[in-house]
Amino acid sequence: MTQTRQLKLGAMIHGVGGTMDGWRHPAIPSDASVNLGFYKQQALKAESGKFDLVFIADGLYINEKSIPHFLNRFEPITILSALGAVTSRIGLVGTLSTSYSEPFTVARQFASIDHISGGRAGWNVVTSPLEGSALNYGKTHPAHQKRYQIAEEFLEVAKGLWDSWEDDAFIRDKESGVFFDPQKLHRLNHQGAYFSVQGPLNIARSRQGQPVIFQAGSSESGKTLAAKSADAVFTNHENLEDAKRFYQDVKRRAAQYGRTSQEILIFPGIGPIVGRTSAEAEQKYEEVARLVTIENALHFLGRFFDHFDFSQFPLDEPFPDIGDVGSNSFRSTTDKIKQQAKEQNLTLRQVALLAATPRNNFIGTPDTVADLIQQWFEEEAADGFIIHASVPGGLDDFVEQVVPILQERGIFRREYEHDTLRGNLGLPVPRNRYTLARQKLHR
Amino acid sequence: MTQTRQLKLGAMIHGVGGTMDGWRHPAIPSDASVNLGFYKQQALKAESGKFDLVFIADGLYINEKSIPHFLNRFEPITILSALGAVTSRIGLVGTLSTSYSEPFTVARQFASIDHISGGRAGWNVVTSPLEGSALNYGKTHPAHQKRYQIAEEFLEVAKGLWDSWEDDAFIRDKESGVFFDPQKLHRLNHQGAYFSVQGPLNIARSRQGQPVIFQAGSSESGKTLAAKSADAVFTNHENLEDAKRFYQDVKRRAAQYGRTSQEILIFPGIGPIVGRTSAEAEQKYEEVARLVTIENALHFLGRFFDHFDFSQFPLDEPFPDIGDVGSNSFRSTTDKIKQQAKEQNLTLRQVALLAATPRNNFIGTPDTVADLIQQWFEEEAADGFIIHASVPGGLDDFVEQVVPILQERGIFRREYEHDTLRGNLGLPVPRNRYTLARQKLHR
Ligand SMILES: Cc1cc2nc3c(=O)[nH]c(=O)nc-3n(C[C@H](O)[C@H](O)[C@H](O)COP(=O)(O)O)c2cc1C
Ligand SMILES: Cc1cc2nc3c(=O)[nH]c(=O)nc-3n(C[C@H](O)[C@H](O)[C@H](O)COP(=O)(O)O)c2cc1C
Repeated sequence: MTQTRQLKLGAMIHGVGGTMDGWRHPAIPSDASVNLGFYKQQALKAESGKFDLVFIADGLYINEKSIPHFLNRFEPITILSALGAVTSRIGLVGTLSTSYSEPFTVARQFASIDHISGGRAGWNVVTSPLEGSALNYGKTHPAHQKRYQIAEEFLEVAKGLWDSWEDDAFIRDKESGVFFDPQKLHRLNHQGAYFSVQGPLNIARSRQGQPVIFQAGSSESGKTLAAKSADAVFTNHENLEDAKRFYQDVKRRAAQYGRTSQEILIFPGIGPIVGRTSAEAEQKYEEVARLVTIENALHFLGRFFDHFDFSQFPLDEPFPDIGDVGSNSFRSTTDKIKQQAKEQNLTLRQVALLAATPRNNFIGTPDTVADLIQQWFEEEAADGFIIHASVPGGLDDFVEQVVPILQERGIFRREYEHDTLRGNLGLPVPRNRYTLARQKLHR
Repeated sequence: MTQTRQLKLGAMIHGVGGTMDGWRHPAIPSDASVNLGFYKQQALKAESGKFDLVFIADGLYINEKSIPHFLNRFEPITILSALGAVTSRIGLVGTLSTSYSEPFTVARQFASIDHISGGRAGWNVVTSPLEGSALNYGKTHPAHQKRYQIAEEFLEVAKGLWDSWEDDAFIRDKESGVFFDPQKLHRLNHQGAYFSVQGPLNIARSRQGQPVIFQAGSSESGKTLAAKSADAVFTNHENLEDAKRFYQDVKRRAAQYGRTSQEILIFPGIGPIVGRTSAEAEQKYEEVARLVTIENALHFLGRFFDHFDFSQFPLDEPFPDIGDVGSNSFRSTTDKIKQQAKEQNLTLRQVALLAATPRNNFIGTPDTVADLIQQWFEEEAADGFIIHASVPGGLDDFVEQVVPILQERGIFRREYEHDTLRGNLGLPVPRNRYTLARQKLHR
């Protein structure tokens, strides 16, 4: 039996949600962002739907204008570890910035989650878009390109540290008293432009070899980093054509580094809204959109432009030309916003409201949503999706109503194939570099 | 009814143990240091014994001579978070170094554990004794005194960040759309000798206000830091007299900072070995001591002296004079070793074997051990103890056989009094500094 290509699914758990006003919905527990019960329920729901992974986003800077979820939320390493202890099969992917952390600590914490969970950890590598992050770390915010240079070296170091111990290094023979084979313990001795790290790491590789690497930058530098070093890419697209272009682009770049199409998976983020009828689905969207005030919408839009103040412009005139503002921040997102405003001739009010209650095409009956997912998947715009709840109960609806259809159609699993994240994603287990080198030598 | 002073108990969970050879014992799972089942079982056992807390030690540097537990173990933040999700009342205290981390990240991770666990987090502040740690962080190892200066400022920043949000800052009124009161969100704007941190922290205070602070250095600088800033001190003493002296010393120092005796708790670490008869207890010690080779004992001893090589000296002559070696490392421990060797005229072999299988007085029948604990407690050598398992099953024995005696005698709880760690330890909830300032202003 040949294994046909299978869809992958991740569930973003995002507390009170990714918008300014979503928390006001009656069905959202307004402390959800620091509520273990909520995170646990969502993770178990996703696991019951055979999702590959849960996904935790993050940020390192807040101010009075930040969206409610960002103000007071769990830190990713801690909540992933907690979820690791109460789930059994689902992957645990979290965001951590390479611009404001140390490779030894980060490699160690993700490796430890990997052991806690029996091989289910993943790291979403980000470079921190917000300038303000620097103020919490007594540094200056590195420019966009430099952030990616740092990220590349950081990731190299982390992967090196993860290989400190070969898989059969621990002998643990009580009789002879040999705990480990010193030949299979390795120092990295990394000396680079940004980091000097000797190693070895004080934790072994896990059952999946190394944590899965996600990458979430969509600029040129972001795509290159992903193509070189990531197992998966988290991205955002307005429409099928853009998504296809991005998909092909990243896979082609990966091929240039000698990697096959199966070795790097593309996950657009979507916020499906499901109703028994398409009218019911639209109504759910409207319920959430109605909660947004224009002030909050302007704040929310401003955040992508590094907390730029849009309230200085008239609301009902064309989206203002603000030049290069925010280009060192969420560049790929801001480029897209500016382009869309221009193409569709939108006013500032329209741009802001749309940003504050993003609307995607994945709205309708379970069949409509399943059709779209299947189309994006089969036409190679996506290998999988990161599902976030645009409306309260969005994940529950998706698991209960859409997943069974995808299973019925044979594109999504009915049971987990493996018990590691790499196993379920169909990703290869990276061989230990030192074991490989020794085997090459002896061949 | 006046509340009589009550004993406090912590359980060190330490994987394959704190010695070179303990893992060889048939009853120890030889992968215990990365075995979630083992950590969970130990934490639940301690919780069934109404222990105040579990305690996780840590280190940032290993080499070929490190003890097995250090080579491959869980990272503290991650394992505490995991245990937080599977326990309900016991405190979760873990070690993290102020010499190799960032206050914003550390404050955030402990605050997040505090939320995950509903107010049960604690941080054992250490300064990293091992020079080699620097090699994993591309830094030079700060000298002993400077490490404590850094620690003091670090802790000040962390506590400041923890107060970013006043306790009633989050309004979460869905009707009016007010999520928080911006008057109750505060920037720290710290600019110090070692750190510049603006804040605010992106997580609220927990039900216990701030995580509990442990400190585990016993030098002059260590005691001063504890007296100023810690809620509890983890320490090691050979005998009752030393322990009493240390206890009085720290309490007196704390008084100089205006703190009462109840506001800083002293926890000597002990490794009780319990048998039905004292001979059975001695036999348990011997079983473990017999596993130690002299080579391993020398390695183990050397580690306290920053991996000094003792194998160059004759084994059966008096402990050699090695001058100042290791004084920038575990200073209080090495001073004690040197003093004991001199006073008791011990050979290198004796010192090494004793170091490798530390023997304390807490060996004997459950009554003997309970007597000693009661004596230390009542004579004010200790407010509580951190119990580690010197022999396999040591914690289980203690919980099943010694705890009931302590309860019978009325010095240890039969039920948790509170559901936060501070509550159970009888420590005050630190008032939010900004709330306090406002109240003073309005008085
Ligand atoms: C889909 C997506 C998700 C992202 N998630 C995060 C996140 O959780 N935390 C974060 O700091 N940055 C996040 N980012 C920001 C990126 O990591 C990156 O810093 C930013 O997009 C700028 O890089 P770029 O120009 O390559 O996109 C995300 C970006 C995208 C496109
Ligand atoms: C009882 C005790 C426990 C300690 N636990 C740790 C630990 O888990 N990790 C660590 O890096 N250092 C630990 N230390 C080391 C101290 O934090 C400190 O760095 C070292 O003892 C040197 O400081 P001192 O001279 O003030 O004791 C411990 C020290 C003592 C006395």
